[in-house]
Amino acid sequence: METQQQGRWIWYPGEFDCFLGLKLWEQRCERGTHITPEWKVESLYPNIWFRKTVTVSQDTVFYPVANGEMAVRVDHEPWYRENAGEGVTLTKGTHFVQVTVFHPAGLPCLYIGHPELATDETWEASWVKGTWTKAQCRDFSDPSAPPSGLSFHTETVSPVSSEKLNGGLLLDFGKELTASLVFHGVKEPMTLAAAFGESKEEALDYRHCEQFDRIPVKEGGKTPFIRAFRYVFLPDAAGKALSIQAQHQVLPLKNKGAFHCEDELVNKIYETAVYTLHLCSREFFLDGVKRDRWVWSGDATQSYLLNFYTFFDKDICQRTMRLLRGKDPVMTHLNTIQDYSCYWLISLYDYYLYTGDTGFLSQIYSDAQGLLRFCMETVDERGFMNSRPDDWVFVDWAPMDNRGNVAAIQLLFARSLEAMAKVAGATGHKEDEETYRAAFHKTLSSCFAVFWDDQKGLFTHGPAGKPDAVVTRYPNLFALLYGYLDGDKKQRVIQNVLLNDHVQPITTPYMRFYELMALCEAGDTPAVWQFIKDYWGGMLKEGATTFWEEYNPDQTGPEHYAMYGKPYGKSLCHAWAAGPAMLFTRYFLGVRPTAPGYARFDVIPCPPGQEISGIIPTGDGEIKVTCGPDFVTVQNDTDGEGTLYWRGKTHSIPPHRTLLAAPDGPSAKK
Amino acid sequence: METQQQGRWIWYPGEFDCFLGLKLWEQRCERGTHITPEWKVESLYPNIWFRKTVTVSQDTVFYPVANGEMAVRVDHEPWYRENAGEGVTLTKGTHFVQVTVFHPAGLPCLYIGHPELATDETWEASWVKGTWTKAQCRDFSDPSAPPSGLSFHTETVSPVSSEKLNGGLLLDFGKELTASLVFHGVKEPMTLAAAFGESKEEALDYRHCEQFDRIPVKEGGKTPFIRAFRYVFLPDAAGKALSIQAQHQVLPLKNKGAFHCEDELVNKIYETAVYTLHLCSREFFLDGVKRDRWVWSGDATQSYLLNFYTFFDKDICQRTMRLLRGKDPVMTHLNTIQDYSCYWLISLYDYYLYTGDTGFLSQIYSDAQGLLRFCMETVDERGFMNSRPDDWVFVDWAPMDNRGNVAAIQLLFARSLEAMAKVAGATGHKEDEETYRAAFHKTLSSCFAVFWDDQKGLFTHGPAGKPDAVVTRYPNLFALLYGYLDGDKKQRVIQNVLLNDHVQPITTPYMRFYELMALCEAGDTPAVWQFIKDYWGGMLKEGATTFWEEYNPDQTGPEHYAMYGKPYGKSLCHAWAAGPAMLFTRYFLGVRPTAPGYARFDVIPCPPGQEISGIIPTGDGEIKVTCGPDFVTVQNDTDGEGTLYWRGKTHSIPPHRTLLAAPDGPSAKK
Repeated sequence: METQQQGRWIWYPGEFDCFLGLKLWEQRCERGTHITPEWKVESLYPNIWFRKTVTVSQDTVFYPVANGEMAVRVDHEPWYRENAGEGVTLTKGTHFVQVTVFHPAGLPCLYIGHPELATDETWEASWVKGTWTKAQCRDFSDPSAPPSGLSFHTETVSPVSSEKLNGGLLLDFGKELTASLVFHGVKEPMTLAAAFGESKEEALDYRHCEQFDRIPVKEGGKTPFIRAFRYVFLPDAAGKALSIQAQHQVLPLKNKGAFHCEDELVNKIYETAVYTLHLCSREFFLDGVKRDRWVWSGDATQSYLLNFYTFFDKDICQRTMRLLRGKDPVMTHLNTIQDYSCYWLISLYDYYLYTGDTGFLSQIYSDAQGLLRFCMETVDERGFMNSRPDDWVFVDWAPMDNRGNVAAIQLLFARSLEAMAKVAGATGHKEDEETYRAAFHKTLSSCFAVFWDDQKGLFTHGPAGKPDAVVTRYPNLFALLYGYLDGDKKQRVIQNVLLNDHVQPITTPYMRFYELMALCEAGDTPAVWQFIKDYWGGMLKEGATTFWEEYNPDQTGPEHYAMYGKPYGKSLCHAWAAGPAMLFTRYFLGVRPTAPGYARFDVIPCPPGQEISGIIPTGDGEIKVTCGPDFVTVQNDTDGEGTLYWRGKTHSIPPHRTLLAAPDGPSAKK
Repeated sequence: METQQQGRWIWYPGEFDCFLGLKLWEQRCERGTHITPEWKVESLYPNIWFRKTVTVSQDTVFYPVANGEMAVRVDHEPWYRENAGEGVTLTKGTHFVQVTVFHPAGLPCLYIGHPELATDETWEASWVKGTWTKAQCRDFSDPSAPPSGLSFHTETVSPVSSEKLNGGLLLDFGKELTASLVFHGVKEPMTLAAAFGESKEEALDYRHCEQFDRIPVKEGGKTPFIRAFRYVFLPDAAGKALSIQAQHQVLPLKNKGAFHCEDELVNKIYETAVYTLHLCSREFFLDGVKRDRWVWSGDATQSYLLNFYTFFDKDICQRTMRLLRGKDPVMTHLNTIQDYSCYWLISLYDYYLYTGDTGFLSQIYSDAQGLLRFCMETVDERGFMNSRPDDWVFVDWAPMDNRGNVAAIQLLFARSLEAMAKVAGATGHKEDEETYRAAFHKTLSSCFAVFWDDQKGLFTHGPAGKPDAVVTRYPNLFALLYGYLDGDKKQRVIQNVLLNDHVQPITTPYMRFYELMALCEAGDTPAVWQFIKDYWGGMLKEGATTFWEEYNPDQTGPEHYAMYGKPYGKSLCHAWAAGPAMLFTRYFLGVRPTAPGYARFDVIPCPPGQEISGIIPTGDGEIKVTCGPDFVTVQNDTDGEGTLYWRGKTHSIPPHRTLLAAPDGPSAKK
């Protein structure tokens, strides 16, 4: 074998994500029973071609390693090896090398370590005629270990308390974990029942808790699965003198953002939100860690945004977007939900705006087109996307009638078309850009024609002007957030909907997120600041160590844990509740990109009557902002050009400069 | 567990075939090296829903068994089982039972043995929202053994000679086998090299034979693979006193047809053709058994026909058609070849004509439509199917220029449209039927307008009328066979092309098959009889025990074995050379269906100056024909209505009646 090994395992782009997806779907269970997703599960392409034209400086031998059966062709001739491990010879010069890897039940991938042929992104891959593209790789470079999963950071956590109760043993680990259990003090192998709880009540109520397992236990043994819990109740372990620890497992993500203020409750809310997001950020952005442990496009759309203000990890965004989109043919909307297809398209532009990454955009462009095509198949003459019989129109967990065309969906669809026009433009698809932009204008103007009630000054939920037309917050929020309202309409929507208590209130943190964003956009940051303290602070007061899928301050005790008709159905660590991980930095420090990849950005600080400070990561650097009632400092450690809006004036913030705006005027320093 | 077990393993229709396909592609190798197919390889759907509304006569418990992870819902509620093997309880009455099976790397399938819930075709299956259809099953009914493959018939064959030669050991098994090797007399485990040969020359030339393996050998051990061979050469086994046998493995297919005459050479040709077809009929119709061991649509189209005159096994036809069609999206033509997509569509109608099986037609209809849609995407204003950049236009192994539109392809495409119109009609898709029929007429009339040279009285290969227009046999054969020529044109084509030695001759048995069919249709059965004796008899004289991929009587010795630039590249057991398995019964006994499923059929005997007899299977019975120069007896053991054409007169043959036509007139008896 050659001594220098330089290659990395390569595969067809997206297939590693598909492989992780299969593992994810396989692992999902409730009370020891597997639960399958309700939408299309993609399988791996079993047969991948890899190719490269290589030049070797001397006669040489290389040793390809495959995960699967391998067929090698050199200059189009098959290379027959009669012994496993036999090398492939190349004469000095330039050769066309093609290696096909076939795996009927795993991830076909290839490794060549030879420095002059090393497998990496300079190789091409194809899964069927006409699909040649740049191969994909990560940092897997051990030829004896084909890629099997992501690396996680683990930490051993001991219970903060251990209590004999109800004839069993109750462990409290002090905060929500995503962990395996490790057993010590096991005298002889046994099977232990374990009830996991996000709350103490859930763990103790082992007949109704969401996660209950019978675990084969031996000395030093570890559960082969992770569960999300703070509490564990072991009904049969009271007399067994076991030492049980949790092996907490998280993706090694670092919060590159920061937020700090003088109010410790707010600081705690921010930290808890980031921790909540972190636990839900695994192979993909999960909705929650106890359940569903599924990847939902609507939930993910918020995780992408939160991520850009915290971990700024592009990779998890790409993995999530690929898994959600799946492969052709598109058979249903994403997660079977109309709005969720729209969110995917909208998020693709968000991804671009925050990262400026046209490489990924180009890779996924035809998939995005395919999804949009599926959406457009049901478009009517007004430009509205109509439902197929099996479509789910979700919008939010709230009582409303979503039959027929509803405004929220059509506004999301308009935004999807606008986003795809921009994506098409960014990837050089000028003709598509024009097509999508024209479709966008048509759909948007129909939205105003059909759903805008000019007398009431708001969007109605269904067609406007009918005597029984219902008003919901959703279309009004989206129209405001997407910038579809001119000054007058915007003010009317704020007054007539956002600040109108008679309009059905939002009860999920999911839509609350958009509502708070809209209120911030409307300039009502003081109300938002107080609301966050009350609402998220309320969960902390209830003992939350991560934020919840739903929170109703009017409920008490175990009422908080019930959802979906189950006493502990609610997820107490849910990504869509992590909004404060972004709200403070985006709306109070006020930093948001205005050109892709933060080439240009705005800083619109709204200090809440006290000094606040923090960091906004941008991919190629960070923006630090500190501001108080009468000053703001912006340290721009990026190549981008900032604009500070402060006290009615605008100030330019050049790349790698610090700007101080205070009563005695702004000053910029290198 | 319940005592009575009545269920069978069920899966989503076609998935077992896909599973067999993956095994097929995985096993294909040359000289110990895996060779992957050059077209899209389908993977299995990992997640299948099964459902049924069941009524149980008393409170009961059932025990579902899954190949994969399982999720059970009873009346839409999840059933949590805390212990493996725990049963599911049902109260007396009617329940909706849904079981989801997830397998990321195998065939998801389900077994329930309970008599009142037994899994079988009364269950429904789905792989994604909106795809509910009847579940599929075969005779797998052992809950402890999920379906792993087809059952094969095995037979132990000893060598007819064993000879020390060239320092090694040469075994001759007397005829072509598809077999493993079994080793006895092995004193201690060793690795043996084995060179397999369809010819003696190939086995001995172990550096160039197509199949060469290094086999770990122990006492009583068997190779884990089968190879196609008559000879085996073991270069290192001369001094080892081993006893080596072949374990011949074939699908348990019975020839339900028969043909016999007074000419032993012809009888031998018929038997050898049936044997050749049998060896090539495995999980699917393979082209050949030494190589490629692949499933090619053009080859299969002939195997379906041969099968209907011999094994009459619908199952292998369905498996082959499903594998060839694959799953959506259609990315290339079948096997990447334009003509091969056409053959698939044409064969679907053939399948229907011979079997009358509308059930399979309905199951596969949308797939057929999808393939035709792919073909029609490139149709121009004349109705011609045009090439995509990567398309392969094959037609035949012969020198010809297939760039641009060629007549053979457009006639095949016309026939595809005609076939699909009939399939649409048979499955109740009246609108599609009209669309396809209109498209057929358009394409066919363009074929005449563009390729028919009325002066020369034939189809040219490319557009007619050009000074350099080339004539090939192919379009003329197809037009004649498909009945597209009126009386005058038909006679001109026969004279100007079929019987014209100046037109480039056909050298493959593949296209020869159509040529002989066309000659028979043209009434020239005496020439065909003699040709078969000369051509296929020629291979027998060369020692053939199965028929060859190509045969040129002008070649001698090892020249016969070379092809594709390799000394033993030619397959000596190739399905497309098995034409005589059908030609005698179809054209000399003269039996062919004229309405689906032999509801009506013609008998047009053409005795070759001697008495011939045989059997034609029809699915629901058989038709026995004996005829000599001056008599014919037809025994119609079917429900169909026959018509005998004899000496210029027609005679009706009612169901289950025997008709004798002789010089003293016809008589029918019960």
